This record gives sequence, C-alpha cells and structure tokens, in this order.
Amino acid sequence: MAAWGQRLAGVRGVLLDVSGVLFDGAEGSGVPIAGSVEAVARLKRSRLKVRFCTNESQKSLGDLVRLLQQLGFDISEGEVTAPAPATCLILKERGLRPYLLIHDGIRSEFDQIDTSNPNCVVIADAGESFSYQNMNKAFQVLMELENPVLISLGKGRYYKETSGLMLDVGAYVKALEYACGIEAEVVGKPSPEYFKSALQEMGLEAHQETVALSRGRLLFLPAGQPSRGLHVGARWSSDSAVHQNLLGRLDHPPPGHTSDQLSENLWEEV
Amino acid sequence: MAAWGQRLAGVRGVLLDVSGVLFDGAEGSGVPIAGSVEAVARLKRSRLKVRFCTNESQKSLGDLVRLLQQLGFDISEGEVTAPAPATCLILKERGLRPYLLIHDGIRSEFDQIDTSNPNCVVIADAGESFSYQNMNKAFQVLMELENPVLISLGKGRYYKETSGLMLDVGAYVKALEYACGIEAEVVGKPSPEYFKSALQEMGLEAHQETVALSRGRLLFLPAGQPSRGLHVGARWSSDSAVHQNLLGRLDHPPPGHTSDQLSENLWEEV
Repeated sequence: MAAWGQRLAGVRGVLLDVSGVLFDGAEGSGVPIAGSVEAVARLKRSRLKVRFCTNESQKSLGDLVRLLQQLGFDISEGEVTAPAPATCLILKERGLRPYLLIHDGIRSEFDQIDTSNPNCVVIADAGESFSYQNMNKAFQVLMELENPVLISLGKGRYYKETSGLMLDVGAYVKALEYACGIEAEVVGKPSPEYFKSALQEMGLEAHQETVALSRGRLLFLPAGQPSRGLHVGARWSSDSAVHQNLLGRLDHPPPGHTSDQLSENLWEEV
Repeated sequence: MAAWGQRLAGVRGVLLDVSGVLFDGAEGSGVPIAGSVEAVARLKRSRLKVRFCTNESQKSLGDLVRLLQQLGFDISEGEVTAPAPATCLILKERGLRPYLLIHDGIRSEFDQIDTSNPNCVVIADAGESFSYQNMNKAFQVLMELENPVLISLGKGRYYKETSGLMLDVGAYVKALEYACGIEAEVVGKPSPEYFKSALQEMGLEAHQETVALSRGRLLFLPAGQPSRGLHVGARWSSDSAVHQNLLGRLDHPPPGHTSDQLSENLWEEV
C-alpha cells in the first residue's frame, strides 16, 4: 500500500459523487449521510480542489443544488458537473431534436431545445415515466430513423433511495439497445469526455492526478487517462457501503473489509 | 437451390408461428393475414405434419385458440406449443415460486402456481404492465435472492400490431439482466428445448426434418439440431414481410427479393 500513499502525494483534486455519497435521496427530498456535510467542508478547506460530479438526471441542476444547500452542504451550481447541460450542448452542436424520455423534474433543462419531429432519443433516469407507452414511443422514434441516435444520461444499473434499490437508466438503455440493435452514446460517468470536462471545470488538466469518490468505491484517476479509473483499496461494492458516510469511508471500511491504507492517507491529507 | 429442393423431399413436418404469420394481432383481437386460413387448411390436408409453435404470452392458450378459431383457422389447443404451460411445468419441477411480471391476459395459466414469498421472477410480454413499479419490484425480488432465477417466456425484440411496432419481452429481459448482472433462462423460441418439445408433440423425433415458418423468415430445422435453424432462401427481414400472407410468402417474395426456389418447392409439396 506504500506505493499508493506515495502516488496520493501528487493528487491535486477530488471529484465527489453526490447521490449515495453525500446524501441518500428520496423523491424530491433526501437525508445527508452522517458526517458528509463536515467532510465536504474540510475538503474545501484543504489544499485539494473539489468538484461535484453527478449523473443526477431526475432533478434540474438548480433543484439539486438547492436541495444540497438545504441539507447543509457548502455548494453552488458552478461547482457541479451534471449531464443535462452537457447533453443540451451536444444536441445544439449536432442539430438534434430529441424525443425526451426523462423525468419531469429535469424537463426545464431542455426548455431551449427543439423537440419537434424528433431525430434522436434522449433517455435519463425517468423513474415512473418509464412506462410501456413512453418506452415504446422512444423505440418507435428510433426504428423510424435511418441512423438512430440514442443519447443516455449515465448508464447506471441501479441506485439507492431510502425506500430501497431502484432501477436506473442503464437498464432501460439496454432494453432499447437490444430492441433496436444499436448502441447508446453515454453522457455522464463513466464516459471519458465527462470526466475530462469535470477536470477542466475544476481547473485541472487530464495529466494532473485526481481522486474520485463515487458510490461504493474509490477511483484513482491516473494522469492522462481520466476515464481509466483504477479501483484502489477495497472495492466497497456491498450495498451497505452506500450507507457509509464519507468520513466513515475514509476512516473505517465497512465490516468485512480490511483497513485501507490509501483511504487513511487521503484522510490525513485532508 | 437444387440442393434445398432435394433436402425438402425429406421434410416430415411444418412448425407454424402464429402472430405475424397467421394473423396480425391487436389488443384482444386480430385480423387474419390474407390467405393464411386457406394455407393452414391445405397444409393440414397434405402429407406434412403441422403444429403451431408460438411465443404468445399476452393471452392464455385457451383465449389464443378461441381467437384463431373465430378468425377461421382449423386449430385446437392440443396442436399448439405455448410457453406458459411449459413454464408452469418447470416451476413445479424446481419448487419455484415466481413473482409474475406478466400480462393480465395470461395470469390464469398460473392459477395453480404458488406465488407467495417469491424465489424467482417469471417475465413475459406484459405490455402496459411493464410499468416502472412492476419492473422495479421484479428487480428487487431478484436482488434479494442468493441465486437469482429469471425465467423469460421468449426473448423477442419487438412484434407488430396493427397500430405499429411494439417492444417485446426481450427488451425488458435485457434490462433486468443488466441491472442484476444475471442471465435469464428462456422458455420459448429460440430455446432448443422448446423446439424439441414441439417436435415431440407433433410425433416427430429431432432426427426427422422439419420446416418452421416464423416471422419474416423460413427456418429449416436440420435433423438432430432442432435449435440450429438454418435460414434458407431470402431472409425476409423487412417489416413489410410480416404483412405477407402465408401463400404470398411461398409464391411471391416481397418486392426487392428474388424468387425463392425453396419456397416454391415447399408450396408444390403442399
């Protein structure tokens, strides 16, 4: 583990996932994970640059940041990399008019986008809006296109709410990919471009080293390969890990996992 | 094509798909594809053994056969291989108690199945019942099992109704497979066991040759390998092919396809 400690000495910034790391969400609300408010404050006081990098696609960026502020976090919209604004840029650049298979909570992000006579589909974590009717409409739009374009905000398998595990957008992306015989373009983690733009937004170059704290795991983003996150230490993949607070992640690995020297070193850095 | 003609001389039976081959369906009703009623009658008068092999999983076997009879087909329940009865046998043999993610129209097929405290998921073409809530329930059941079992009635990508193309069960199977990191067991076409049991039910052995007429294509089932259907002649994969009636399939390939010697030979056989 000594090698990791040495490498950590060169780390310049920390990318923090939001849902499941800072707070456990529920429809329209959430509960901060114990210790995470303090951890963010301490990180922001440290020498490390901090940015929030989320695949949140049920709430607009404004709503997400307001919720986090209400929960006590020191955070502003300018500190968050989120997939909806990134998607809007792509749509405009490529002249795409999407059928939006998205949650109503994020629809306002697409107010400036032409959705008439769709020539692509944008899919996000739509929750209850993943009805058969809506999925079938997306499917039919894609099947009528000569060159079907499916843009997905993230490709997560599932996420945790206070009520339990919930199917995420990735499952529905797989459904459309299989039905149409196509492959989606992912905007959001783990897309290389997405990590790269988050680094740029925090004023770091891809050749500078960064640590990402994501759900259930620590990623070390090696210089020059921001997408090739190496898993370091124990991969805390058990669901219980999601409940571990940020301080807990660093100081106390979940039961059944051995102490993680890297995590302790990172904490000492902070 | 001469070789195919010679091989056809040894063919003993014909497996007929139902939806999209005999009739175009709509919710609770359907329209016979022109000529198909007569074609079935002529096939049944020929020396060939005939059986109907469907992945229909929105209607019970009884309802399906009643509909076909109303549309004019000479057919009885005993002539149809359908996935729901086959699934019930598997559930009983293995002591499985399913969460049923299915269409209400087929629920009666599972009347004798214990569904308390589920230890597996059975998924079929549930149509409007593919709500987020129901999909999430299936997902949660699977995630709580030590050895998750997902049984799928077919794995079709989509099917055609009079109102247009519709997402089929296969898309939703892919969604659950991805979310849970598992692989479904398929009961129905193209499962080898399913073809084999259809052959047995028509009184043929797997070493005897059979032709299957399925949606958009002709399958030749080589002796001894009932699952390894060879595509013969033109693969009529364009959607328009679905509209071609059974007579038309045999006598007049769809526009843009060349005449298919095998098909003509088969028709002469009939």
